Amino acid sequence: MKPVVFITAGDPLGIGPEVTVKALENPLVQHACSPIVIGEPCSLFRAGFNDRMARLISMDSCECLQDAPHGPTEAGGVASFKAVELGCKLAARTGCSLVTAPISKQSWALGHIPYVGHTELLRERAGKNGLMMFVSGRIRCALVSEHFAIADLPRIITRARVAGAARHFAQALQRLGIAKPRIGVCALNPHAGDNGQFGNEEHTVIEPALRALCRKGLQLEGPFPADSLWAAHAKGKYDGILCMYHDQALLGLKLAAREPIVHITAGLKFLRTSPTHGTAFDIAGKHCADERSMTSAILFAAARSKTPQF
Amino acid sequence: MKPVVFITAGDPLGIGPEVTVKALENPLVQHACSPIVIGEPCSLFRAGFNDRMARLISMDSCECLQDAPHGPTEAGGVASFKAVELGCKLAARTGCSLVTAPISKQSWALGHIPYVGHTELLRERAGKNGLMMFVSGRIRCALVSEHFAIADLPRIITRARVAGAARHFAQALQRLGIAKPRIGVCALNPHAGDNGQFGNEEHTVIEPALRALCRKGLQLEGPFPADSLWAAHAKGKYDGILCMYHDQALLGLKLAAREPIVHITAGLKFLRTSPTHGTAFDIAGKHCADERSMTSAILFAAARSKTPQF
Repeated sequence: MKPVVFITAGDPLGIGPEVTVKALENPLVQHACSPIVIGEPCSLFRAGFNDRMARLISMDSCECLQDAPHGPTEAGGVASFKAVELGCKLAARTGCSLVTAPISKQSWALGHIPYVGHTELLRERAGKNGLMMFVSGRIRCALVSEHFAIADLPRIITRARVAGAARHFAQALQRLGIAKPRIGVCALNPHAGDNGQFGNEEHTVIEPALRALCRKGLQLEGPFPADSLWAAHAKGKYDGILCMYHDQALLGLKLAAREPIVHITAGLKFLRTSPTHGTAFDIAGKHCADERSMTSAILFAAARSKTPQF
Repeated sequence: MKPVVFITAGDPLGIGPEVTVKALENPLVQHACSPIVIGEPCSLFRAGFNDRMARLISMDSCECLQDAPHGPTEAGGVASFKAVELGCKLAARTGCSLVTAPISKQSWALGHIPYVGHTELLRERAGKNGLMMFVSGRIRCALVSEHFAIADLPRIITRARVAGAARHFAQALQRLGIAKPRIGVCALNPHAGDNGQFGNEEHTVIEPALRALCRKGLQLEGPFPADSLWAAHAKGKYDGILCMYHDQALLGLKLAAREPIVHITAGLKFLRTSPTHGTAFDIAGKHCADERSMTSAILFAAARSKTPQF
């Protein structure tokens, strides 16, 4: 029996259904898992879905989307939310992985969904310690802080946050099969503050957080200037690097990645992956969306999923 | 007659003399310019310098450095400072380019030099509008802010600074032969603030600064999220990108560069280039320093230098 992977097809009026169907057409995906798709059926069939690709759990929309133009809508928000909600429940109950195609935060707002997006829903339903992580081949990084203004970073980067992220990142890398992961940790400031000349969060926050974890046996090195650390990671010196903020991670990742990037939320009750793009309303329905990130997200999830007894 | 390039050999106890000599041994360098080296003679001859390589203007140290151990010293600070001071004067008077091998800020402090480093000295002696810029083949970027803590950025990134840097960057690219440079401008915040959800410097500072310049005919696009913009620049979409802060520039640069990186100070009375490494005291004297960045810095300076009448 192959492992089961739950796949939510995302916003029905974005490219989610299209990349889901294209990924399911890939023989590697079919070989790796028994996919169960949860989504709005009309948009999936319009994208070429058929019952041989996967089992389908239909999330009917409150109105027919057959000829709806692509873009953010209340109906799309409600349908995609219900899919993610059910996906969470099933993954949590079975321990199988969950792959989520992109939803639209705007559609969720139009649908009066009480969550901003996937992250907030997952934190509430599947564990508070969700860690944003990206993998592309041997390039692996995790984020201490996610969507914050640069001005807020000094307040957000606390010892507790750095320590929590480092611990969860080490655990996640162990689950990926790296017994004793060697993790490089980025500084917050340029030149790691150059001995406090421009910023001292390195000394007051990051170093103390790392020291305590190193004493417990974790292999954490840093904080090092982010530019040199990313260059070293690209050459294979570390198993993963921990970044302090969004652009420090994403900028390095997009330039260093040589394979499709998989977005992972680690530290939940189950493994959740997703492609790294959004709903791309502007190209939805044109059948030109690139499904490689979605395919990688499913294959990654499949390799770490389970075969539950239904 | 070949163009003249002034080269300061940097801290005599760092790798400056070694990379200078190694670069001068390169036939391409000898073909491209008439180099005039300004530096402490003892360290240069120890590194293999001879009179056929270049004319030498000796900057004698206050004490003999023949057997001095490599590292920061008062003598090294004074000698390297005097060399840069003279280099500035000669370059400003002749309009020839200046290439500076790395000095040690610590040595300058030990030598009671009233400047932190090259940048401060150049700003005072050769023009206040010095713009930090990096070039590696078709990858070109400039910085709105240089060595500041992340916490200081919201205060530092002003309309005047953004506009000034954008204007000087466009001029510098024109001098490199790009008639109408297309410049991408990075946002400060992740996702360019996502419509003010996390930070709004994009709307309040960067956009207004760019709008005013676009009306004057400059081709500036943005502000765009830094991760996507760097990815687009790596694919050749822009002639150069303007970064808001140090790591945003250096992180992208180090991962996207496929050729040696040249550090340029544009907007001075003369063109100044330098290699991108420091004094590297730990490997000084071991004859293992990589001179490629220095070679590129000299070749870049030579191609834009003059043949003065002495």
